[in-house]
Amino acid sequence: MTSTDGVGLVETRTARLFDSEEPLRLAHGATLAPVEVAYETYGTLSPGRDNAVFICHALTGDAHAAGFHAGAARPGWWDNLIGPGRPLDTDRLYVVCANLLGGCQGTTGPSSVDPKTGRAYGLAFPLLDMSDFVTVHRALLAHLGIEKLLAAFGGSLGGMQVLEWALTHPEDMRHAVVIAASSRLSAQNIAFNAVAREAITRDPGFSAGQYVAEGTLPDRGLSIARMMAHITYLSEEAMADKFGRTPQLGEFEHGFGADFAVESYLRHQGESFLERFDALSYLYLTRVMDYFDPFSRAHATDAAAASGVRFLLTSFTSDWRFSSLHSRRIVRHLEHARIPVTYRDIETAGGHDSFLLEIEPYHETIRAYVDRALEEL
Amino acid sequence: MTSTDGVGLVETRTARLFDSEEPLRLAHGATLAPVEVAYETYGTLSPGRDNAVFICHALTGDAHAAGFHAGAARPGWWDNLIGPGRPLDTDRLYVVCANLLGGCQGTTGPSSVDPKTGRAYGLAFPLLDMSDFVTVHRALLAHLGIEKLLAAFGGSLGGMQVLEWALTHPEDMRHAVVIAASSRLSAQNIAFNAVAREAITRDPGFSAGQYVAEGTLPDRGLSIARMMAHITYLSEEAMADKFGRTPQLGEFEHGFGADFAVESYLRHQGESFLERFDALSYLYLTRVMDYFDPFSRAHATDAAAASGVRFLLTSFTSDWRFSSLHSRRIVRHLEHARIPVTYRDIETAGGHDSFLLEIEPYHETIRAYVDRALEEL
Repeated sequence: MTSTDGVGLVETRTARLFDSEEPLRLAHGATLAPVEVAYETYGTLSPGRDNAVFICHALTGDAHAAGFHAGAARPGWWDNLIGPGRPLDTDRLYVVCANLLGGCQGTTGPSSVDPKTGRAYGLAFPLLDMSDFVTVHRALLAHLGIEKLLAAFGGSLGGMQVLEWALTHPEDMRHAVVIAASSRLSAQNIAFNAVAREAITRDPGFSAGQYVAEGTLPDRGLSIARMMAHITYLSEEAMADKFGRTPQLGEFEHGFGADFAVESYLRHQGESFLERFDALSYLYLTRVMDYFDPFSRAHATDAAAASGVRFLLTSFTSDWRFSSLHSRRIVRHLEHARIPVTYRDIETAGGHDSFLLEIEPYHETIRAYVDRALEEL
Repeated sequence: MTSTDGVGLVETRTARLFDSEEPLRLAHGATLAPVEVAYETYGTLSPGRDNAVFICHALTGDAHAAGFHAGAARPGWWDNLIGPGRPLDTDRLYVVCANLLGGCQGTTGPSSVDPKTGRAYGLAFPLLDMSDFVTVHRALLAHLGIEKLLAAFGGSLGGMQVLEWALTHPEDMRHAVVIAASSRLSAQNIAFNAVAREAITRDPGFSAGQYVAEGTLPDRGLSIARMMAHITYLSEEAMADKFGRTPQLGEFEHGFGADFAVESYLRHQGESFLERFDALSYLYLTRVMDYFDPFSRAHATDAAAASGVRFLLTSFTSDWRFSSLHSRRIVRHLEHARIPVTYRDIETAGGHDSFLLEIEPYHETIRAYVDRALEEL
């Protein structure tokens, strides 16, 4: 049923948006200009420009959602979902994915060079809000000539962005698909983010955020943050199935090395993360998640209720980072406002990272939802 | 029902055990001599020497389980359980609590001075095994003239030590009380320990374990380890009840400070931990937990089954560090060997730290069990 070919060779492009005449105005009052936005597209925009879907990525994701970069061994992070014949069928859809503001993979972020000073913004980069991600991606869509999305999709932080977008600019989309997300982090969620940030900022290599200029890197702290976070992305059951108490080298060496397979795996996760992620982006993006609480706003659902936007919410039974309760809370808020919402709690042991996995009932849910959305056009 | 007076003023004493003639022989082959052991006692040993109970403490505990040290504002860590009229009633029991081998609060550990070199052992300290804790505490009991305990009690790591002791030397006790413990850490448990150790050993202040001699301290790493571990000691519900999303200062400042109350709390936990705990002890003791797997040994339960020792197992429904499944696994092993075991799963939102709290059904379970044990003498 699924094509094995995928979208093939792809490239990340960059759009330069906003300028000093019309800078990006952030929720907390600061302005930025210009703003570079890295994005990729798959499939073909229909003559009626009504088949575009936008992908909002998770905390450590990027614009490269599908296909292969030249010479790469691994495809984009959501390649199992996006492609010809796949649930997000690029024979019928025009798929856009963009790196978010504050990120480190092509879109302007805290480690980008501040044109005013000629060096990295560092901690002088303004604090961001979920709505700022939306503002930048709306500007990208305008740049691409897309007025209305068939749907926006996102998992985890990406799902939170979709929720923000659909609540504040529901006219931009017919459907909002919010996967393994939350409308308000719990104290435990915030606590894990806080410890990750402490690990980064207490690393002497952090150099008060000017580590690029100083030639230091907070690699120790960033890898500790990643290792800890990674534990929360997997369920206890999935970790038990994958690693159990298996020795890394056939038998135990009894010492402080990576003697258990799970230790070796985590170290590898921590190390490989350093090649692709920036410590300041980690700080800024997790902080956006902490403060996000859209339903606390007055009239939070009024615009969406009046617009006709419809929601699909999906959670995973073994997700303990954003448990099903987080999705159910969103569903309750939407239902209370009489906003059409479909909800699926997918039975799986995969934990939070399930949103990245090819789990059949999950992919079939997405496929069926997209098929119906296309039929109803 | 509970006396408010407690055991009053107490002092930690030190026993010097083992010597170069008869050194402590560790499970992995190394020897240590001498070994200092810090301990406290509460109540009076009966003429028949049959009313002694031994308290095994948790990872970051110490010998000071009850009463007040001179000038101290806070009592020992299990003061709500131990004292006149309390579940461990010191009007009837003689209670002994000792710091464990590898610890940092009076008992020989990796930051103790190696008599051979005149400086701290550091990473030259031998790797420990759960059975080594038992060996040292058995020597202390012999030193105190106690041949057989009425019971050994322990929560978390302390419960694991009680389990080891009761399986390998069941003749030492009539009852083994194992609270919120595990007979084998899960991959997730090991993962959290591993990241905590990485945070410590990657801190430049760790100085390859010679931080005392070098005049550096791995304070950043140790406090990160503590903050992360602390999240696992509380349930998500308990954290939500205690902190929710409450701003620390009445309203949000929107920045990277400790803006949420839960962040401020964790920072405080991380800082105050530095005053009382040693980074090397954290490494050595968590590693003992990782490797512990007593039921994997051949004939693991034979001695206990033949001895008449009885078990009480207690878990807490909201404990996700060592969930009830860990206790149920121990119960299954014991029942399979026809060893008498009583099991209580206490309904509470308190998480793993419930074993330290005055939760009525928990304390009443302990009280009733102790009363019956005394009656049956």
